[in-house]
Amino acid sequence: MRRVIGKCFVGEQRRPTSQRLLVSLLQKMNFHTLPKRVQQFQEPSVWLEFSPLSSLCNAINLGQGFPDWKPPPFVLEAASKASSDPHFSQYARSSGLQSLVSTISRTYAPLLQRSIDPTKEVCVTVGASEAIFLACQAFVESGDEVIFIEPAFDIYFGAVVYAGATPRWVPLHMQPKEGQPLSASDLRLDYDELRSVLSERSRLLILNTPHNPTGKVFKKEELQAIAKVLQDFPRCLVLCDEVYQHLVYDDEVHVPMATIDNMWERTISVYSAGKTFSVTGWKIGWAIGPWHLIRPMMLSQQWIVFSTTTPLQQAVASSLEQATQPFESEPTYYAWLKKRYQRKRDYFYQALIEAGLHPVKPQGSFFIMIDISEIQDIRNEMPPAIMEWWKRGLLDVDQRTQTAVDYNFCRWQAVEKGVTAIPFSAFYSRHHQPLGSRYVRFSFCKEDAVLEEAKQRLVPHHP
Amino acid sequence: MRRVIGKCFVGEQRRPTSQRLLVSLLQKMNFHTLPKRVQQFQEPSVWLEFSPLSSLCNAINLGQGFPDWKPPPFVLEAASKASSDPHFSQYARSSGLQSLVSTISRTYAPLLQRSIDPTKEVCVTVGASEAIFLACQAFVESGDEVIFIEPAFDIYFGAVVYAGATPRWVPLHMQPKEGQPLSASDLRLDYDELRSVLSERSRLLILNTPHNPTGKVFKKEELQAIAKVLQDFPRCLVLCDEVYQHLVYDDEVHVPMATIDNMWERTISVYSAGKTFSVTGWKIGWAIGPWHLIRPMMLSQQWIVFSTTTPLQQAVASSLEQATQPFESEPTYYAWLKKRYQRKRDYFYQALIEAGLHPVKPQGSFFIMIDISEIQDIRNEMPPAIMEWWKRGLLDVDQRTQTAVDYNFCRWQAVEKGVTAIPFSAFYSRHHQPLGSRYVRFSFCKEDAVLEEAKQRLVPHHP
Repeated sequence: MRRVIGKCFVGEQRRPTSQRLLVSLLQKMNFHTLPKRVQQFQEPSVWLEFSPLSSLCNAINLGQGFPDWKPPPFVLEAASKASSDPHFSQYARSSGLQSLVSTISRTYAPLLQRSIDPTKEVCVTVGASEAIFLACQAFVESGDEVIFIEPAFDIYFGAVVYAGATPRWVPLHMQPKEGQPLSASDLRLDYDELRSVLSERSRLLILNTPHNPTGKVFKKEELQAIAKVLQDFPRCLVLCDEVYQHLVYDDEVHVPMATIDNMWERTISVYSAGKTFSVTGWKIGWAIGPWHLIRPMMLSQQWIVFSTTTPLQQAVASSLEQATQPFESEPTYYAWLKKRYQRKRDYFYQALIEAGLHPVKPQGSFFIMIDISEIQDIRNEMPPAIMEWWKRGLLDVDQRTQTAVDYNFCRWQAVEKGVTAIPFSAFYSRHHQPLGSRYVRFSFCKEDAVLEEAKQRLVPHHP
Repeated sequence: MRRVIGKCFVGEQRRPTSQRLLVSLLQKMNFHTLPKRVQQFQEPSVWLEFSPLSSLCNAINLGQGFPDWKPPPFVLEAASKASSDPHFSQYARSSGLQSLVSTISRTYAPLLQRSIDPTKEVCVTVGASEAIFLACQAFVESGDEVIFIEPAFDIYFGAVVYAGATPRWVPLHMQPKEGQPLSASDLRLDYDELRSVLSERSRLLILNTPHNPTGKVFKKEELQAIAKVLQDFPRCLVLCDEVYQHLVYDDEVHVPMATIDNMWERTISVYSAGKTFSVTGWKIGWAIGPWHLIRPMMLSQQWIVFSTTTPLQQAVASSLEQATQPFESEPTYYAWLKKRYQRKRDYFYQALIEAGLHPVKPQGSFFIMIDISEIQDIRNEMPPAIMEWWKRGLLDVDQRTQTAVDYNFCRWQAVEKGVTAIPFSAFYSRHHQPLGSRYVRFSFCKEDAVLEEAKQRLVPHHP
């Protein structure tokens, strides 16, 4: 029992009196029986260390991925209008406000290359996060296996574990082109390896393109190769997280898995207003797919949140309509958004090269990975300041990461350079931690001035 | 396999061609393996029949419980302001925006008779619905039992089943006082019966006061009696849904279970901005409890929705602050709200008496139950119009309810009188359906003109 309680309330380990009180209380009340699903998440997450660490160091936080700028005026105006309109004050239809699902069906028909039934093939959710949770609740249970492509955004793992299923992992491999700078397109899936983790028990494959945390954009040929492997596993569905759909650079094109031959019938595609309109706090996302996949999600939605916030659904409907209009001298808002992010990527990629940090050029998303494996004199130990904050209970540290080289690199960067990154092994299962420990992730969805200041701090002797 | 598919897509039963196509598709794709949790919810819910029915009959919908009036101006203004403020556009803290949890801790200290730690004892959720789902995910799993007091709001059942637990039911019994009109206070729990469903497996008791659908307000003595029974079952927590906290009539007082001796440590109390400020569409609720109960909910929240909508959390914080100020000649908004609802309850209760419909006087909430058991010439058959709409696929009907007397009473009321109620057996497990079949539920959270029109329609020869 002591072990479980110890894991349970990690923040308490350095507060002996309150822990004693807590343990006695727990013993009195038999709290050692938290469900298995909760017990798996007792260690503090990477976010619980690095967000407070960033504040403690007064560092520029390029760890968390949310934009630090104002959303476009038409988006804020739509929100203000819908929020003060009593027509949008009461419950929406559980699977989505009619105006929003209609707009989504029109907006996504060209991308998905088919007509979309607004009431049967769209489900509006509390951000893409809830769409992912919902899909897991609707389709997987104990005995099922879910396949992740590593590295993977950590929220997938939680959703799968809460549904009672067993995660399986297949890693991306870095295959650099000789004599060329590293690119996220050099990350490749080994299709035989993918096949080797699939079985009759496989119920869901989680794909993410453009990809967090690497910035890889899966090419049509790659998606076709995955689809070909899946032909032999007809029970396995695909959940394709496409929240960075508009953030693709150079000549890359975002291809939805649902447009690959025979894949529509088995694919749930997930999108997000938060990423598209720089309003991550609105928590409006949606899933699109055939009715036989969306219907079980609708059935589940009733018991999870029942419905999504009405006024902001209306604001997203209005924003999606306006986004196709000219914006700031660009033909559409999307064109402006892409150009803005492309400029930031180019700037920050160059800054990282000047800093000698071996960046891997992203093709999409607002993340950039750097290869720390060739950095000389890397210190694989916790900075004393962090040890002190941890001891004093100001930081929660997953103690298993004390000797993880990527964690320690990020810790020293925060303490000495004043710039926060996120260690890559946080995006890997324990099976493939060594693959992650050679990289860290920065996000560049920040105002130009913030990126310039980060460059000042990172580049030695920068004028 | 056929049986499961048949249950799966009930709406398709009357569309033979599409059903054939669907079945062939499902067979091809092995879709017979939906998780058990989803398979339990394949029959259409009562809402899926009666909301469209109300529209088809052009009836006054007194079935669903949401206010049809404008929220107060200070609430809409707060929403408009926060939604257009870029400070509130990005992710909130997962367990709640700091300004909101601080306001909640101050607002609820008097009611809960203790100081509340804003960062450890409050978790903001996507409406009270998600608080209930979250509590079930955080505390119960397969092998656990959850106790409901029947009749019970149907969302509890879904949350419990999705967590894999087994529901147990204990009914309220009507014990009328001789010579007095029926009152919701005549509904009593048999404490020996409660004890008989509790065991070592009991992990959660779901309480709801003021109570939906009966309008009962549990008295302090009743809560003390429940607490006394629970003393012998230390593993059993209490989830107390208090979303109608401000809607209590005459001299009744709302007493939170958490204020009963020794109950704070094992009680999660749930509240809702939707019910308090007449903004059910905002989907902002919160749970309050000791840290050892709120912490597992916070851990779970990260994987379900991650966080709740930021701008409307800020608007609720501001509304909670303003609600204690004078409003429309009343000392506070809450006083005004209670007076408004009291007037509506009095009016509609009287209207139902005049209509000869045997209402049971509610002490709280915005629902009123009527006893149909003594109505003469009650027709226990489906109205032909509804059979026709069902056949044509315009209505989804749970076929098991075809001969349910309360369902058929509501159907005839909608078709012939043009007023929609909700059959009470929808709030009962199959074990206690007969108890439900003698009642139906109206909600009176509607504009005066709507209640007057409903009275016109219900009362025979009303001038």
